[in-house]
Amino acid sequence: MENELELKTKAAKEASRRMAYLSTEIKNKALAYIADDLLAKKDEILAANNLDYKVAETSGMSAAMLDRLLLTAERLESMAQDVMAVAALPDPVGEVFDMRTLPNGLLIGKKRVPLGVIGAIYESRPNVTIDISSLCLKSGNAIILRGGKEAIHSSNALAKLVQEAATRAGVPDGAIQFIENTDRTLVNQMLKMGDFIDLIIPRGGAGLIKFVKENAVMPVVAGGIGVCHTYVDKGADIDKAVAIAFNAKVQRPTVCNALDSLLVHVDVAESYLPRIADELSKAEVEIHCDEKALSILKSHHNLKLVPATDEDWGKEFLSLVIAIKVVPSMDEALGHIEQYGSGHSEAIVTEDYGAAMRFLNEVDAACVYVNASTRFTDGGQFGLGAELGISTQKMHARGPLGLKEVTSYKWIIFGSGQIRP
Amino acid sequence: MENELELKTKAAKEASRRMAYLSTEIKNKALAYIADDLLAKKDEILAANNLDYKVAETSGMSAAMLDRLLLTAERLESMAQDVMAVAALPDPVGEVFDMRTLPNGLLIGKKRVPLGVIGAIYESRPNVTIDISSLCLKSGNAIILRGGKEAIHSSNALAKLVQEAATRAGVPDGAIQFIENTDRTLVNQMLKMGDFIDLIIPRGGAGLIKFVKENAVMPVVAGGIGVCHTYVDKGADIDKAVAIAFNAKVQRPTVCNALDSLLVHVDVAESYLPRIADELSKAEVEIHCDEKALSILKSHHNLKLVPATDEDWGKEFLSLVIAIKVVPSMDEALGHIEQYGSGHSEAIVTEDYGAAMRFLNEVDAACVYVNASTRFTDGGQFGLGAELGISTQKMHARGPLGLKEVTSYKWIIFGSGQIRP
Repeated sequence: MENELELKTKAAKEASRRMAYLSTEIKNKALAYIADDLLAKKDEILAANNLDYKVAETSGMSAAMLDRLLLTAERLESMAQDVMAVAALPDPVGEVFDMRTLPNGLLIGKKRVPLGVIGAIYESRPNVTIDISSLCLKSGNAIILRGGKEAIHSSNALAKLVQEAATRAGVPDGAIQFIENTDRTLVNQMLKMGDFIDLIIPRGGAGLIKFVKENAVMPVVAGGIGVCHTYVDKGADIDKAVAIAFNAKVQRPTVCNALDSLLVHVDVAESYLPRIADELSKAEVEIHCDEKALSILKSHHNLKLVPATDEDWGKEFLSLVIAIKVVPSMDEALGHIEQYGSGHSEAIVTEDYGAAMRFLNEVDAACVYVNASTRFTDGGQFGLGAELGISTQKMHARGPLGLKEVTSYKWIIFGSGQIRP
Repeated sequence: MENELELKTKAAKEASRRMAYLSTEIKNKALAYIADDLLAKKDEILAANNLDYKVAETSGMSAAMLDRLLLTAERLESMAQDVMAVAALPDPVGEVFDMRTLPNGLLIGKKRVPLGVIGAIYESRPNVTIDISSLCLKSGNAIILRGGKEAIHSSNALAKLVQEAATRAGVPDGAIQFIENTDRTLVNQMLKMGDFIDLIIPRGGAGLIKFVKENAVMPVVAGGIGVCHTYVDKGADIDKAVAIAFNAKVQRPTVCNALDSLLVHVDVAESYLPRIADELSKAEVEIHCDEKALSILKSHHNLKLVPATDEDWGKEFLSLVIAIKVVPSMDEALGHIEQYGSGHSEAIVTEDYGAAMRFLNEVDAACVYVNASTRFTDGGQFGLGAELGISTQKMHARGPLGLKEVTSYKWIIFGSGQIRP
């Protein structure tokens, strides 16, 4: 007998065929209903969330994780606003592009189509249920949602809300599936269903992402791991370099585009390091310094300095910790980024045109910045309207994944009897 | 100790960094040298090919496979021409697109970059060595070539030729690697080297492709399996339908875009089937008919008719065999294609506007045709200049893979001190 996962996955595949040409009107209506219901069904959802929260609290979950799990009336309101923002975005499906007429008279081009069925495997953030559902709905994809055990009541309540709203709007039954069974073996099984699931998006920690990449038979768009560097060049404007590095580290330290390692050219280290270290210390940042940085900063007794170890390089801190290294040259900075970067977001601060262009050319990452904070790497900030995640892979899409990034295309060819000579 | 595969793969990864910003001039010079050497070193290469051919002949390889393995002076000349055609194509690397200025003043857009290291696993066609090398060179990718045992002398000779020509032109050492060890366990090892190989392209039979898809930890662009249908609608122009189906089946039956199953609307079956069957029979095509087609054609005694079995539907014949089914409706034709198609190339023949548009919208395949032969699915025919293969997946690229399809992009962001509020 087929289990819940198999039944629901096959139903999603079936529904995906009709999703591919669902009208924009119905998709937007479904999104509007979801936004309405997030407010109207507030009490139910918060009650479900409370069940999860109590279990998590007693099981000793960290404060950061508890905060990710928690839903509030205010957070539901903000989720509803996000859903309406997705409704306001242009429908990516059906766009026809690259059309041209070949010498033999064939009119040929591409038409944007949904990917089909997207499987999302996520951990404790219940809002991912709404995020992914709304983006997949708008892009015409069917979805299999596989949320973590810790948020199972919240995710289940939100998934039911989405399903009901979608059905009411005329979305084909089966297009949105939520797996209620939290047995971990189902994840393994899901990763082998390449005939039914076109793409897997893992959202969670490094362990989950690694497991999914190694075991999925279908394509995976993974990312989220951001070991981000900012290199303060010898040609840097020191004021800008202080503001940019401070913003990248402190504005929201728990996310993937936050600064981890600050590389400082030796020529500006004496003038720059005391200033940035002072600002960071005021914000209670723990500063891990290489020997050279330590020797420059050691006379500043108000600073929280720790000698850096090898493990600090290439580490995603996700907290108020920074590693600082003084480099003798730009070559050394580029080499360090090549060795330790995760291909997410990297920045240079410089007023030197040649250095800026060299950094843009040679650094291999999803997002490469000159004179700006890496915190901008985000679908909303980049003008994509929303994001399903940030890809650090090179295939298919790189950087923030918006609606267009969860579509494919088909070649369409209009002939009048052409045969190949 | 590291084996040949590990050493060569790491060297390719190292070289790929410099390949990313290699000048178009050097890349084109390398291609010109390869083309020259294919002619100048003709005798060496044909001698190496002769070694493979003799072994294959005595081991009882099929005539079709022997033909694929064979190199001749004429074939080398045509390979040289293909290489020069790649040299003449525009360099995809470095293209900057989607640039725009955000409200905060950030100038943001995308820059096209190579994927990095491409691994090619192929079987007995030695010309794949030249094809893939020239396309990867032009697109700035490093390559690991893993050819089959049957063509090992030929592939090795061609790979050496490519390496020498590339080095002479100034391509970084290590960018083109050929694995000489034909031990099959190396394929397994290669498929696990996700940190060094960015994309695997399997070229060969269904068994190889399946194995690679199931075992590779890195992205795979696979395809090549084409179960192609042509649906002759009740609104078809019968003359066009005869010409198109005949061309799709007979012009080159051994390739993936050739016609496998012909679906004929019952309303035109009486007028159409005798005509197409007569033409196909003259070309010695073996015709597998469903019951209805058989009942229409049985009075035509000159035809080579075979009753179709269930196995005929969804089968890629790769030979002068066709399956014919009479369908009562377009719905039935669409359902059949959905069930049995491989997502490669599908065609409708009709003069009915609504039927044509419905087919284009609803059929989910890399290439969907109205009134033309599926034989056009080809990078050269589509104006891409060349192709690395045909993708039947939806991620990254679908249909013929040209130069642009083996690239990625990075976001480039020009700031002037912006920080995230």
